[in-house]
This record gives sequence, structure tokens and C-alpha cells, in this order.
Amino acid sequence: MQFTEEMFARHMRPINGSAIREIFKLLARPGMISFAGGNPSNTALEPKVIAGLADEVLEKYGTTLLQYGATDGFGPFRESAAEFLRGSQVNCTAEDILPTQGGTQAFDVLLKALIDPGDAVLCESPTFLGAIQAMREYNAKLVPMPTDDKGVIVEAAEALIKQHHPKLMYVIPTFQNPTGITLSLERRKALAALAAKYGVVIAEDDPYRDLRYSGDPLPTIQSFDEEGWVVYMSSFSKYVAPGLRVGAAAVKNPLLRRKMVIGKQSADTHSPLLNQAVVDAYIRKGLMPGHLQRICGDYKKQLDAMLGGFKYFPEGTTHTVPQGGLFVWAELPGGMDAMKAFEAAVSANVAFVPGTHFYPEGGHENTLRLNFSMCDIPTIEAGMVKLGKVISEM
Amino acid sequence: MQFTEEMFARHMRPINGSAIREIFKLLARPGMISFAGGNPSNTALEPKVIAGLADEVLEKYGTTLLQYGATDGFGPFRESAAEFLRGSQVNCTAEDILPTQGGTQAFDVLLKALIDPGDAVLCESPTFLGAIQAMREYNAKLVPMPTDDKGVIVEAAEALIKQHHPKLMYVIPTFQNPTGITLSLERRKALAALAAKYGVVIAEDDPYRDLRYSGDPLPTIQSFDEEGWVVYMSSFSKYVAPGLRVGAAAVKNPLLRRKMVIGKQSADTHSPLLNQAVVDAYIRKGLMPGHLQRICGDYKKQLDAMLGGFKYFPEGTTHTVPQGGLFVWAELPGGMDAMKAFEAAVSANVAFVPGTHFYPEGGHENTLRLNFSMCDIPTIEAGMVKLGKVISEM
Repeated sequence: MQFTEEMFARHMRPINGSAIREIFKLLARPGMISFAGGNPSNTALEPKVIAGLADEVLEKYGTTLLQYGATDGFGPFRESAAEFLRGSQVNCTAEDILPTQGGTQAFDVLLKALIDPGDAVLCESPTFLGAIQAMREYNAKLVPMPTDDKGVIVEAAEALIKQHHPKLMYVIPTFQNPTGITLSLERRKALAALAAKYGVVIAEDDPYRDLRYSGDPLPTIQSFDEEGWVVYMSSFSKYVAPGLRVGAAAVKNPLLRRKMVIGKQSADTHSPLLNQAVVDAYIRKGLMPGHLQRICGDYKKQLDAMLGGFKYFPEGTTHTVPQGGLFVWAELPGGMDAMKAFEAAVSANVAFVPGTHFYPEGGHENTLRLNFSMCDIPTIEAGMVKLGKVISEM
Repeated sequence: MQFTEEMFARHMRPINGSAIREIFKLLARPGMISFAGGNPSNTALEPKVIAGLADEVLEKYGTTLLQYGATDGFGPFRESAAEFLRGSQVNCTAEDILPTQGGTQAFDVLLKALIDPGDAVLCESPTFLGAIQAMREYNAKLVPMPTDDKGVIVEAAEALIKQHHPKLMYVIPTFQNPTGITLSLERRKALAALAAKYGVVIAEDDPYRDLRYSGDPLPTIQSFDEEGWVVYMSSFSKYVAPGLRVGAAAVKNPLLRRKMVIGKQSADTHSPLLNQAVVDAYIRKGLMPGHLQRICGDYKKQLDAMLGGFKYFPEGTTHTVPQGGLFVWAELPGGMDAMKAFEAAVSANVAFVPGTHFYPEGGHENTLRLNFSMCDIPTIEAGMVKLGKVISEM
């Protein structure tokens, strides 16, 4: 017998991995300036601090951290994660917290709990590539919601709910990936109200929230939810370290939380206890506020350098001016093709992600996503000069 | 709107978590002797060693361990895991290795890659509870294969393949959970041949292999597979520490490995790098052989104590005599009900898992699974006296 593509589950056959996988291979080239990724800066990572905490928690908890643990999570981490999230205007107690492998797994187990093949899921357009892939793997019908500079357009979302009867809406409310846009206060309230009115679960994916460089924090969508329709998904990847794979979802609805726990049980039994304990200690020792202040100070300068670099871009280019996060979104003058610009840019040793990949429905070939967290300021300036030149010459 | 059970995906509605979850709640009672779990002994866990290794690898690799990593896994760990598995008669190179969150995740992403709702999956009967739950979550049609004291009965398996055309067969070949039985050499060869003849992927779940207390190791099913039909799933949970959640699958078929990687990408992005690096260092420093020798020496004595305790059981009780692993399987004389024995035993402060839970098709109420790794020898002896008494009095 021969193993063929037809042996795969139907939903997996058309999926061949993140569209930007090939892009990332190019980034290894020496001299390449990359605005393509979404990693935190290496200068934001603290291997010595983490080693010290690992030592401490293994000394404190001993074999408990090395044994099997509960799928619901490590008790002390659930407490400190809940406290951290309450500081982010999330309405939760330790009991509501499900520790996950980054924010990624929270969405995966939520999809597993809710989605039958063909079920509609509303999402922003554009939205996070990884979420698009995850929804496709559950054979969901992706329904893109139109957005503007204040995020999801609520009236359009309501019309789509009436038309498609989705079980789930996926939203990145703060410093959105890819656009950097923040959903307005009024719309946060309105989306929470829509969820309750129509019985739609909202996956509020908010991993960039505390990377705010200007303006005031807004209440979460979840804070306006009185019936448990909003699942708030946070992650310590952008705040402490993505390599530890520690996230936390706040799930007020006990029925839904229980099904997510069951889904996680079959997926990986439980999250590693050492990693939960290290992040718990990081929070309890009060390291987070100072650390966030430091990295936000650095990221703000990097963002400013990138925004300043748009002067090298052709006239008619527009771009977002995010108050935080890791990304700036640009639209080239109509008719320009960011896919072609990408090829020329890579030849000139500068990279970004063409925006079309972030649209579930495709199109929008004149858009691009630029990341500023992974390069220092001189590199950002040099890269924007190069990129502006390449695009202007097209 | 009210959130109701009907909002869940169809495959998740009937699943309410491991059947033995309620059992485990009882185990917290003071004085309870538990033969119910499947954890390694706490004396097998080495928090100081792990803390030392965590320090070392964070010093050596620095921010690399804290950044995002590749879904395919951490390079050095893939190399050392491949070397470790080659020592277990697995035919593999570093390229074949997919690091996973314990063995659990390897099976989950394999199901995700292959299974459409309704697809048949063959499994041993009885088999691992967690695997039954995972298969049900993918809406697979579970087809139980009859077994005897040499494991899966090959002729019966072939007849079931012809009847059900399964994409996948799930087998625990060595010191099986729950029975402790080891699949014979001839049957290992024969199953590999069946896989190739009929185009069935075999998930060879082999997490107990190196917990051997007597007899000689047998070649893996995978070692007889020349076409890449067998996915070999190993785990460091029973050898180093379950709490670290480090497993490794060897997947020779590049098409299949790629789809598993894609499924894992959406599930958790990648496995935590620190955990992979710690287990990598554990292997590279040569700590494994001595550690396995020590814990196998201890487990052998615990197994012998348990086997000796069957003299307190009623006449007509039969039990397996495993050469390794963590479990002994017993059948009470016909007509006796292990579910009722369980209630009486728990009242007498001794616990086990009634065997019926391990049968996808139910029944077999006179069977029970006993674990010996979590109690010291006096406790095992005391527990077997109690349990024998409770059952004899029924």
C-alpha cells in the first residue's frame, strides 16, 4: 500500500502550514533585516532570572513539580494568574483560570469544545494567521467581519450573526495582530451585549494588552459580560517568555470550562508544572510591573523609529499608529502589490509579511504587516529606508 | 440566551472526563492505600538534578530557550531523543523525531491528521482510558481487537481490518496499560506486515518499554516497518518526570510527520524549549541508564510484593505476571463484580480501578487494574491483605 494525501482527514488535506513559513526560511540569510516576525525582543528575555526562579520553585515544591498534575492547572499559578488578570480588568477568580500552552492552546481547546464541521465562526478581517489555520483545522466556516480604525464594526457583526448563526466570534481587541488597532470602549460594550443577546461565545484574544506605550487601558470585553459568554485568553509569551509556553484563559462559564479541560486532558494531559510555577513566582515576586515598564519603554522607541520611517514610502501610503503591541499595518497606494514588493524587498535584504495572508477571504494585495520589536533602532531606520526605496521604485 | 449542552460540538457532548476522575478524588482521604493511579514513584523523581540541568541549559543556550521555537522541535533534543530511541530498537534519525507534550499529544496530533468523524480505529480491548477518550473526541468509531496473554490476536485483527477498513490501529505493545501484557515477537512482526498490506497506520504507544524488570527486550513493531506505517510514540514521563511533559514520536513518513507538525502548530505552537533542553541534557550526560537501573530495581520489588499479595484473594482469581511496567491485571472468579468490590474496598481504605472502564465496549465487570509503583512495600502488602479480605468476604 502507498500512503497518499487522501489518507488525511478532510480538514487537514488543504492545510500545509502557516503561509509565512516560507518567508521565515528567508530570514536566516545573513544581513537580512526582518520586520516579518512577531517575537519579543531578545533583550526582553531574562535567562538568569528564569534560571533563578526554576531553582527556587524546584527547591520549594520538590517532586510535586515533576509528578503528574491536574489538567485544571497548578493551584498557585491559577491564583497569581487570576490576580494578574484582575489587574487587566478581567473579572475572574482562580477557579476560572485554565492554564494553557500559550494563548494558542486556549483557542484550540475552545474550538474543540464548540465546533462541529461547518459551524460558522466570526473573525476580524484581517486577523491572526495562526487563528485562521486553527479554525480551518476544525472545519469551521470562517465568516470575516469588516473592521475600521476602531476595530470590528458592530452593526456589520450583528448582521453576520443573524445571517450565519455562529457559535463563536474570535476577536483580538488590543493592538490587534496584524493591524495594531484597538477596539473602542463603546464597541467592547456592544460586542459583549451581542454575545449575550444572540448566545455567541466570544474568544477575546488579548496577548498584547500590557504592551501599551501611550493612551489609557480600556476595560476588556469580558468585563462587560455578565453571563459568561466571553472567554478571555491571555498569555505570558509577550510579557515573560514565549519559549516557556505559559498562557491562561479566564472562563467564567463552568460548563464550558469543564469541556475545555476535558479537551485539554486528551490533548496533553496537563501543562508542565515547572513552567507554571516559574511564571507564578515571577508574578508573586512582583517582577512584572518593572519588567513591563522597561520593555514598553524600549518598544515605544522602536515603534517611533518605525513610524518615522514611513517618510521614505511613496506618497499615498497609509499606516496605523498603534498605541502598543508589536505591529504596524500599512496600505500602499491602490494598485500596488505588496507580494511583488516582498520579492524585491527580500532581494534588498529586508522582509515583512504581505497583508493578504491575514485575510480569510484573501485579496487586499496592497497591505503589509511590519514588526518592530525584533530590531534595534538603527536597524529599523536602515530597514525602513531600504523598504521605502524598494517600494517607491516599483 | 442560555448556554446549554447543545452548544457543544457533537463529539464533546457525551464526554465528561476520565471515568476514573471520581475515583481519584477519593484517594485524597487520609489513610487511603491507592493502587488506582499510574504515576511514577516520588522516589524516582529528582528535583535537584532537574534544577541543576535547568540552570546549565539556560546558561548554555540563554535567550534561545525563552524565544519562540520551531514546531518541529529543539534540534539538540531531537538528536538525543533519536539516539535514545535507537537504543530501544526504534529505526529513526533526528529528522524523524517530533517532540510532543508527553505521549498524549503524539496520539492527539496523529488523530487530528488522520481521522474524519466516523473513521474506524482499531484498539486493544482493554486499552488505555486516555486513548479511548481521545479517539472519542475525534468521533472515531472504536473497533476493539480481542487480545490474549500474548497481546493482540493477529488473525482477529486482520478480520477486523477487512471488515472496518480502519485508517489507524492503536497498540500498547510493552507492559500494556491496563494488563501489563507484552505483545510477542511474532505478533509484532505480523502487525507490521498487516499495516503495510492493508495501508493502516499503527500508533505504537510504548511509554513503559524501559521499565523492564525481567526477560529480554523485544524489537519494536516499528523496527519491522519498512514503509513508514508505524508511528512510534515514546515519552519521558515514566523515565524522567511526567510533570515536565516531554515526549517524542518517531515518524518516518515525511508526509504524515508534516501534517502532525501542522496540527501541533495550531494546538500549542511548539513544545517548551526549556523542558526539551533539560531532557536533552539528562540524556547527553548519560544519566538515563543508571537512573533506569535504580528505579527498575525498586519497581521490581514492588511488583513482587504485589504478586505475592494475591494469596489473600479468593480461589479462582487469576492475574497477569508482567515483566515490567506499572500495572498488574486481575480477573476475579466469574460472577464477582469489581465495581461492587471497589465500593467495599474504598470503605476499607484501599483503592484500585475497576477493569470495565478500560473496555471500549464495556462489560468484563470481574476485572481490575492494580498499580504498584506509588506505594512502598509494606503499604503494598497491607493493601493486598485488605483488598483480598474485602473481595473474599463478598
